[in-house]
Amino acid sequence: MGKKVSIKKGIALWNKAKRLIPGGSQLLSKRAEMFLPGGWPAYYKKAKGIEITDLDNRTHLDFSLMGVGACALGYADDSVDRKVVEAVRRGSMSTLNCPEEVELATLLLKIHPWAGMCRFARTGGEAMAIAIRIARAKSVKDGVAVCGYHGWSDWYLSANLGSTKALDEHLLPGLAPVGVPRALTGSVAAFSYNDLEALKDISAKRKDIGVIVVETMRHELPKKNFLHEVKRIARRIGAVLIFDEISIGWRVTLGGAHLAFGVSPDIAVFAKAMSNGYPMAAVIGTASVMRSAERSFISSTYWTERVGPVAALETIRKMRRVNLPAHLKRIGGMIADGWEKRAAAHRLHIKVIRTPEALVMFSFDYGGLNQALNTLFTQEMLKRGFLASLSVYVSYAHKKPHVDKYLAAVGAVFKLLAQAIRHGRVKKLLKGPVAHQGFKRLTK
Amino acid sequence: MGKKVSIKKGIALWNKAKRLIPGGSQLLSKRAEMFLPGGWPAYYKKAKGIEITDLDNRTHLDFSLMGVGACALGYADDSVDRKVVEAVRRGSMSTLNCPEEVELATLLLKIHPWAGMCRFARTGGEAMAIAIRIARAKSVKDGVAVCGYHGWSDWYLSANLGSTKALDEHLLPGLAPVGVPRALTGSVAAFSYNDLEALKDISAKRKDIGVIVVETMRHELPKKNFLHEVKRIARRIGAVLIFDEISIGWRVTLGGAHLAFGVSPDIAVFAKAMSNGYPMAAVIGTASVMRSAERSFISSTYWTERVGPVAALETIRKMRRVNLPAHLKRIGGMIADGWEKRAAAHRLHIKVIRTPEALVMFSFDYGGLNQALNTLFTQEMLKRGFLASLSVYVSYAHKKPHVDKYLAAVGAVFKLLAQAIRHGRVKKLLKGPVAHQGFKRLTK
Repeated sequence: MGKKVSIKKGIALWNKAKRLIPGGSQLLSKRAEMFLPGGWPAYYKKAKGIEITDLDNRTHLDFSLMGVGACALGYADDSVDRKVVEAVRRGSMSTLNCPEEVELATLLLKIHPWAGMCRFARTGGEAMAIAIRIARAKSVKDGVAVCGYHGWSDWYLSANLGSTKALDEHLLPGLAPVGVPRALTGSVAAFSYNDLEALKDISAKRKDIGVIVVETMRHELPKKNFLHEVKRIARRIGAVLIFDEISIGWRVTLGGAHLAFGVSPDIAVFAKAMSNGYPMAAVIGTASVMRSAERSFISSTYWTERVGPVAALETIRKMRRVNLPAHLKRIGGMIADGWEKRAAAHRLHIKVIRTPEALVMFSFDYGGLNQALNTLFTQEMLKRGFLASLSVYVSYAHKKPHVDKYLAAVGAVFKLLAQAIRHGRVKKLLKGPVAHQGFKRLTK
Repeated sequence: MGKKVSIKKGIALWNKAKRLIPGGSQLLSKRAEMFLPGGWPAYYKKAKGIEITDLDNRTHLDFSLMGVGACALGYADDSVDRKVVEAVRRGSMSTLNCPEEVELATLLLKIHPWAGMCRFARTGGEAMAIAIRIARAKSVKDGVAVCGYHGWSDWYLSANLGSTKALDEHLLPGLAPVGVPRALTGSVAAFSYNDLEALKDISAKRKDIGVIVVETMRHELPKKNFLHEVKRIARRIGAVLIFDEISIGWRVTLGGAHLAFGVSPDIAVFAKAMSNGYPMAAVIGTASVMRSAERSFISSTYWTERVGPVAALETIRKMRRVNLPAHLKRIGGMIADGWEKRAAAHRLHIKVIRTPEALVMFSFDYGGLNQALNTLFTQEMLKRGFLASLSVYVSYAHKKPHVDKYLAAVGAVFKLLAQAIRHGRVKKLLKGPVAHQGFKRLTK
């Protein structure tokens, strides 16, 4: 039999949500079908540290996405929440501004001495749209060369608009530019990480490139001074260089990952981990570039509330106090070692990606069977009390005892998976459909 | 001499902010220069009800923008904040979804029975961009006919892109489309409120209009079934109709103002008052239109946190419990009457706009002297303990005793202004420069 997993309320609410909310959730990565169709708890009552209580009062340890990267200190961090509650008591909004946003600007600029000015938003997607607006205003050229994932906005999805006008044609499956104005066709050219030749090619062919945007890193280190070379090209063609630090920032070093590589952009963008679960985003840049914002109109009421800056200030201070990047590296390393050791023990073929340890991940190496294996892994780990996916967004709340417990469960599940593979029973063991796969990243 | 107004700390911090943050604030309407250059407190320590304490520990009663419309229940509302603090304690974010967003969707759809589905964001600007994306996806036509103010996004500002390619040419002063991709030129056509002929003209000339967007109302009631006629045109040309309820929603009736006019759109958008100061926004629409969102990619991590939906749920419930629209109408009416009576008493020429009472406003009628008079009004009201502008965003926290106190001060200041006008001393009485004027609304 195994342990009984009763998550009826969560499943029922998820089914209701899909009738009321297109996609069921506001975030692709929080759809139940991305993890375990028909079996995922989907909703939470309480989250603290890495422990999540679902609607059926079942508790789970989160060894998956930790709020999709938004909670690097762990859920409901006491230090951050104390400041947030104080901010609520003192009024989260007024006709006047909150002084904490100036304090936060000062702190961000101190951590990033190359930058001189700062704007704030409340989500990563809109912060990226602000960065693009400012960059285009500065360079007076609209073309964008892009590498990596940067959200849902028109400027970005337009990369997927084909040369034809068929709106429903999407070049990259799952990332359809439906509803993105076709006039933007051709405005964005994509290149892959570490593919400097591709960027050189774009900049040689197109004279309209005014902006170059890259995720500073994701699961690959820059090779042969890639980021420095990108910057050199940006300078040569008069483009504004933007580093998107939304996913990677604060994890490999305190601040943007670019600090670790010794290369500064014209603009860097932060969100997610920066404020430990409270909506906040920042666009920092050199004064000369950021001043262009003053010639455009970039203004929104909820960018001025107090909770976001207060949460970000304490999150950043605590990340510094506890040396978060060192913790993530240590714990992520333990998890990666544990996967490898246990996979070897059960002769299960997996690939572990440790770049960086803070976003450690593995994949199965069984071709067409992989997605079923992913799903079975999640199903079996859930039975054992873990929210588990192939990626672990490590947090400060992940401690060694948690990892030990997790790896014990991983050992049991890897054994089960290896046996299932040998006996051709992987799909048979699944209680529901295979999980959906996410959108393909625009560039790897 | 008059009372001493010492707001040194606020002014100093504002001057610092302008060096660190382009524009000084994330919102045009929170720039000190919009109110009283060199004299505005700019920052707050504490806000409760309508009382704001500034950095110099001076308290003011807010008879101005009340968080630019975001706090219709008053600052730091006890009922809302109790729920917010609970949500913080239970964890504001996790890998799983918060059930409150489904509860909020259910409530919004119950209040607006014409709508069948709902998406959430955290700011009005991005909610409007989502609405436009969904509408374009549905109609498969990119052209937009627009009326009113709808934020900072590319889709909207592109209305101001000229037919030339001069990026720094802005057709409407103060609302420059700098940094908006010129490929969007011509994608949006603007028409004025109640000008049905202009919309007919656009729809006759352009076959690409797939979206019609209007602010349901601002300071003018729909004439001759304007909104119904706009809907008829939308139906005829196969366009999706969007009502922007961000500023007006919840103030004239519980929900969108369109409920009061007996006309429903395909999509309605809410933010601001909906959540009383916590970042939250909603896009509701008919299921048939909203389902188009499932074919596009509209996804952001911070749209999934818990504080926004929890704040919105309690805000809406309290607005209903206390019959907010009735309160706003009553208090706004008192303020308007008071202005008129005191202006008449001192033979000061003003125009009062009571449409709607919830956003009551007046203007001086002295031609080129008006902006100096606005500034002097704010300066003198500030001395007397009021944050005051020509608009009052009335809130539930504005009670009759506040209004009495305010109108007493208004009487004194109107008298002073009338005398200053008669003796040609208006500019002489100003301690600093005349206030800046806001951007011209794209259409009136």
